[in-house]
This record gives sequence, structure tokens and C-alpha cells, in this order.
Amino acid sequence: MPSAPYSMIDVHHCVFTQVNNLTGTLNILHAMRDVCPEAHLVKLGTMGEYGTPNIDIPEGFFEIEYNGRKDTLPFPRQAGSWYHQTKVHDSNNIMMACKIWGLRSTDIMQGVVYGTRIDGMGDDERLATRFDFDQCFGTAINRFCAQAVIGHPLTPYGKGHQRRGFLPLRDSMQCMTIAIENPPEKGEYRVFNQFEETYDLTELALKVQKVGNELGLDVEVRNVENPRVELEEHYCNPDHRHLLNLGYKPTHDMEAELEIMLNDLMKYRDRILARAHALIPDIRWDGTRRRVQFLTAVYKHKFFNIKKCFNFNILFGIYYVM
Amino acid sequence: MPSAPYSMIDVHHCVFTQVNNLTGTLNILHAMRDVCPEAHLVKLGTMGEYGTPNIDIPEGFFEIEYNGRKDTLPFPRQAGSWYHQTKVHDSNNIMMACKIWGLRSTDIMQGVVYGTRIDGMGDDERLATRFDFDQCFGTAINRFCAQAVIGHPLTPYGKGHQRRGFLPLRDSMQCMTIAIENPPEKGEYRVFNQFEETYDLTELALKVQKVGNELGLDVEVRNVENPRVELEEHYCNPDHRHLLNLGYKPTHDMEAELEIMLNDLMKYRDRILARAHALIPDIRWDGTRRRVQFLTAVYKHKFFNIKKCFNFNILFGIYYVM
Repeated sequence: MPSAPYSMIDVHHCVFTQVNNLTGTLNILHAMRDVCPEAHLVKLGTMGEYGTPNIDIPEGFFEIEYNGRKDTLPFPRQAGSWYHQTKVHDSNNIMMACKIWGLRSTDIMQGVVYGTRIDGMGDDERLATRFDFDQCFGTAINRFCAQAVIGHPLTPYGKGHQRRGFLPLRDSMQCMTIAIENPPEKGEYRVFNQFEETYDLTELALKVQKVGNELGLDVEVRNVENPRVELEEHYCNPDHRHLLNLGYKPTHDMEAELEIMLNDLMKYRDRILARAHALIPDIRWDGTRRRVQFLTAVYKHKFFNIKKCFNFNILFGIYYVM
Repeated sequence: MPSAPYSMIDVHHCVFTQVNNLTGTLNILHAMRDVCPEAHLVKLGTMGEYGTPNIDIPEGFFEIEYNGRKDTLPFPRQAGSWYHQTKVHDSNNIMMACKIWGLRSTDIMQGVVYGTRIDGMGDDERLATRFDFDQCFGTAINRFCAQAVIGHPLTPYGKGHQRRGFLPLRDSMQCMTIAIENPPEKGEYRVFNQFEETYDLTELALKVQKVGNELGLDVEVRNVENPRVELEEHYCNPDHRHLLNLGYKPTHDMEAELEIMLNDLMKYRDRILARAHALIPDIRWDGTRRRVQFLTAVYKHKFFNIKKCFNFNILFGIYYVM
């Protein structure tokens, strides 16, 4: 269950998320111990496990001095959603299994992966990636691209200075290949931080706007109230040398990737329009869920489709007094 | 589910332990948020959450400097059993709930609590505490006392230099009272390390032996193979100032407490004898469980009872080749 907002809906979604995610990993660890103890477990973690500490974020472990003694310890995790906590719990469980059972694992703390294709797919439509853009399973970058394509304003949450690491899908595949081809030692639990560059939400929205406008779209940016509980301005400087040391060659061109994404999405503009209500968040992390029935009804009657974004502000006004 | 060995039996006991313990805490946190957000959650954690780092263990948080910047972060946890991991997961979940929902909680990292009574119980037999001495739910100190009472050698695991913090039941009650009477601020997640003195397993066994011999028991100590996977020699220096600052007055007399325990247990000598097979560990944390049917059968036929410890070494020899 890979969605932070979904895990924040209520107690049932929270408990399902933690039970589902932890049980899966515990079953795998026991199966490895009993059946294939030499196997290499590659776990996809998330940079979100670390939260937003006010210091650099090392790759999993760091040497610290405290009261005059030194030790190398796991870097503290401060996840911000029940989903992200399952990743933290899994990290702790896997680290222990490696230590006491001699298993081996690479835990990849991914930044946000974006993009609709890798080179190996060619133009085969059947290989098109799943593309979530709803409030639960979509990332901000997916949501912005979907919004740009249907003429909906891009909606960064809050002040829009939340900063995250990003990497294109093709680089994510490259990194996982490198991890698999260079397995850790028996008993080793190692951590890679996997991202290419950091952007804040506003920089990201402006990039999508720029590329969208170049493609002839008419893209606006309008920040909306933040439904999450998170720091909107914070320090962010994670290390990410392990993969570079193993030969990772970053692509470094987000705008080229965004252009591919927008072109791919324009073919499916009607599908996005038909689900445009999913772009607006109603899961609030403080526990007070606001309903968007009215907005949903308006979208369903194609009012939004016809008038494009003309009514965006009015709708949001009505939405936020409901 | 409060037993480390139980959680290590197999995948089913592991999954049950994590699902049961996490779900309970998540339900409570949501209920607090929705029904009584001003309530104060006192969670009993364990010193075992920290594992055995080679530096001092602060009370939950510590200020660290890394690459020239400073932050106050949660101290890293490195638990050594699936049960202890549930305590770590709970700590992380509770810390997050305090941060995003403004709940308040005291997380008490307890050392090993020992003792059969508090003063308020008087001599009322109906108030006698539950006393687990089996390999799963009993602590080493309980097991040693039970062994002393029936003339079974005390059985420290491995080298016997595993060092832990301890505190008597009466002090545990005192500390919880102090925590409850001095609640944290709204949104605060605070951690107390709660123990009085640290002993290693051998020191502990020798103390039980000394007090037992003074009471006319004939107490031997014989180390047995360690069924756990743990460091048998390690640094151990946890801070524990928070409770002292709030007025905690430690008792500081383990031998007096042990004398009370042994006297209380002697009344129930027959019950311990009838379950003496439970004193011998067969849950091995590396996943290879050894069976003790033979030993159990011998115990059940009162052979052990009649001959006392005469056959201890022979039995253990047979046990460990099975």
C-alpha cells in the first residue's frame, strides 16, 4: 500500500496500511531465512523515512560522537505519515534480520520517481506505465502534469517550499540494476539514497508551467491550502554518493523528461478530464476530512470541462467553506 | 504480547506479535485524537529498544552535530527481537501522532522490573502478582529465583556478561505515578529511561545464589548455551536523570528484594516443580528450534524432583545432541 494520504484517511486505512506492509516484509524475511538465505533483498524505501531534520542526511548510517565515545549508528527516522512509518518499521525489521540471520539487503531510499517511459519500451503502447494523478496515489509532479494537460491550474500545497529529491524513471531503473549487480555481503544491510536533484514544489510547478507553455498549453499556478501536516520550509541536503561510486550516470534534464510526459499525457486528455475531481485533495492529515461532493458533482456535469478554469476560484471558495 | 522469545518462534508468532502490538497502539492513538485529545498516554517501552550501542544512551533524544550543523533527533533504536521491534515501531508511531495531532505521551524505557510485591498489597494473597518464570514470558531474574527455590542450577545464557538495567516493582510503581502526576505538554513526546542499577547476568546469578544460600537453599550456577542472538559483552551506560529530576527516590537494595521474592516463592515450590521443564530454553533465535521432549518427559516423571540436580549435566548433554 504505497500511498501516504490513503493511510491518513482514518483508523481503518491506517491499520490496514501498517498490517499489510509489515506482514508482507516479515513473510519475505522468514522465507529468505528458510529457503534462500543467500538471496539479496532489494527494498524500495523512501527519502520520506528521514523526515526533515535540520542536518545533512547520510545514507542510512553515520558515525557520531556522544559524551566522548564513538559509534556508527542508523540515522534517526522521523516519517510524517502512517505509510511512511511502515517503511521505517520495515527498515528496522530488515536491519535486524540481516544482523541476526545473516541475510543481505539493499534499502533504497528513493526520492520522487517521475516519467512515463524508459528507452526499452520504444513506442509500444502496451508497455505504457501506470500513471496515478489522484490525491492518494499520484505524486505532486504527476498531478501538475495532469493539471497542465487539461488546463487546470497547478496546485502546490501551502507555501510550496516543501523540498524533495527527484529522479527520472530511467535513472531509477539504472540504479536498481546497479544495486542488483553489486550485491552486499552476507549479513550486510546497506542503504542508498537515490535521487538526482532537489526541487521545492514551487520550482517544480514553474518547470511544468514553462515546459507546458512551450508546448502551447496555457498553464497557471495557484497554491491551495495544505491538507497535510508538514514543514513547508526546511533544510534539505541528503548525501547520495553510494550509487555514484558504483557507476550511476545521472540524466540531469528534468525539462526534457517533462516534455515527454506532457506529450504522452496529451493523448489521454479525455481520461484525465473524466477524473479531474481526483486532483483536488480532501484527505486532511489533522483528521478533519472535508467532503467535496459539490465539486465532484460539478466536475461530473462537465461544467469544468466546458468552462475550463474560469470557475476555479469560485469553486475553491465554496469548497473551503463546506 | 510482551515476550521476546515467543516472537522469535516462527513467522506466525512474529507476524502475530507485530500485528497485535501495533494495531492496539494505533487504535488507541486514533481514539485519543477523536475522543480525548487532552489525555496523556503512558506507554511502557523497554530499554531493549536501544539495543547495545557503543555509546551512552540518552533519554530518547540527543543533540548531534553532523557536517557542521546541529539538530536534536530521536536516538537510533536497534532492537534485537521481533517483540522489541514492536516497541520501536510503537515509539515511532506515537512520536508522529504527538507531532501531527498534538497528543501528549510519556514513553518509559523500562529496565527489567523484578519483585513480587509492593507495600500497598500487605499480606493479602489475592493481590499476589503474576510471576512468569518460563523461557518465553519469564525474565532471567524470575527464572533464577524459581530455579533457586527448586534446587535447579541457575542458568545464565552464554558467557553471562549481557548487562541490563533493573528496578524493583515498588520503584516501577513510583516512577509511573510520577509520570502520571507530571504530564507532558500538549504535542510533547517525552522519553524516560527507567532503571536503577545495571548488572550483568553473572552478577545477577551470584546475587540470587548469595541470598538463596543465606535462606538455607543450596544454589549452584551453571551457564548454558545461549539460545538468543545477542552481544554477550558490550558497553552499557544509559542516562536516567528525568525521573530523578521529578523526585524519584530509588530503593537501592536488590538483595532485600530478592529475599522477599524467594520467601514468597517458597510457598509455591510445588507449582514451580510441576512446570520445571519451562525453565529450559528451546526457542533459538537463529531459527533452528531444538526440541526438549525427552527432558520434558523426565521432568514430568518426577525424576528431576527426586534426584534434584544430580542429573543436570547428563540431561543437558542429551538435550544438546538432540
